[in-house]
Amino acid sequence: MRIITVSREFGSGGRELGKRMAEHLGFDYYDREIITTIAQRCKVSEDYAEYLLNNRFPSTSPIVISQSFQLPEVMHSAQLDLLKEQTRVIKEIAKSGRNCVIVGRNADLLLEEEAPFNIFVCADTASKIKRCQERAQNGEDVSEKKILSNIKLIDKNRRRTREMISDSPWGSREAYNLIVNTTGWDIKKLAPYVAGFAVEWFEENGK
Amino acid sequence: MRIITVSREFGSGGRELGKRMAEHLGFDYYDREIITTIAQRCKVSEDYAEYLLNNRFPSTSPIVISQSFQLPEVMHSAQLDLLKEQTRVIKEIAKSGRNCVIVGRNADLLLEEEAPFNIFVCADTASKIKRCQERAQNGEDVSEKKILSNIKLIDKNRRRTREMISDSPWGSREAYNLIVNTTGWDIKKLAPYVAGFAVEWFEENGK
Repeated sequence: MRIITVSREFGSGGRELGKRMAEHLGFDYYDREIITTIAQRCKVSEDYAEYLLNNRFPSTSPIVISQSFQLPEVMHSAQLDLLKEQTRVIKEIAKSGRNCVIVGRNADLLLEEEAPFNIFVCADTASKIKRCQERAQNGEDVSEKKILSNIKLIDKNRRRTREMISDSPWGSREAYNLIVNTTGWDIKKLAPYVAGFAVEWFEENGK
Repeated sequence: MRIITVSREFGSGGRELGKRMAEHLGFDYYDREIITTIAQRCKVSEDYAEYLLNNRFPSTSPIVISQSFQLPEVMHSAQLDLLKEQTRVIKEIAKSGRNCVIVGRNADLLLEEEAPFNIFVCADTASKIKRCQERAQNGEDVSEKKILSNIKLIDKNRRRTREMISDSPWGSREAYNLIVNTTGWDIKKLAPYVAGFAVEWFEENGK
């Protein structure tokens, strides 16, 4: 079984790269599907599940998600439940024995025993801003300031979420098989190269 | 003109990867040749040139290279001369207009204006130790302890040498187009993939 995991900086095109690689290789593709399953099983909305899985709160601070939530203990326990369910869902994907690409959710750490091919995707700031502006939906604030603040916040949460479950630092070379900087690339053209790279590595390692 | 630069952790196989890529692509290859030229022009031995270029000393500390050297000011000036010559030699390589692969010597920074394809090569510690042991020459100390100490020292010097001329951190993802972890790879099989990757990037960027 061949598993490719894709971790990425916000706005770097990592999700598109993962999706195109899966298409190119005929692999299953997991991304949003994981949140959907977790939310169904934990009987919460997808947005709520995603919010709790993507944000870390220091347990001593008061927590306000919206006007209606102000219960740190409940929050903490809900987060733990979601994290456990996330681990379960990702391990089930691996148990299916089917080749797949999984984007995000620290799948590289959770599936370490399966020896996946782990990719990290990054890009320079100008490219990330451009990408976010091109993909923005109507009415979205696409000022440079807003996008930069999103990049900072989302990547900080990704880093902290990873560092909750591992000493292996987010985006640091020792944790990945390949780090791809998408600056100057058309992701459509990049995908087959990265996919071929991963396939050759699987061959080399008898998978 | 297409320039590929290869920076690398000691023992990761970066030099072999660079050499094989150059062979595969029919590009010129520069590595040791740079030191040879600098040494000739500055009228010093290659070993001495290499030593001074690869080691940084805090200017306030006393410096002892061998029993016969103890003159920090002279050292400092000799280092500066060698560094300037190194910059000159590397820029001359670019001026020749020929496609090439350059290993080490911060060529990625020195040739920034030429928009080279910059690769960083790393590997896990076990692979680096194995590689060093396999390639050791007769009589060399190949104990794990000695190799680990070499890795630490040489990589520290590479980091410091880079950080003398740039804020861009050594081995950190934002500074490179591709970071390749050679763990689990036969470099011979890896080289054509990385080379193809670089060529496609040059095509994409009109070079």
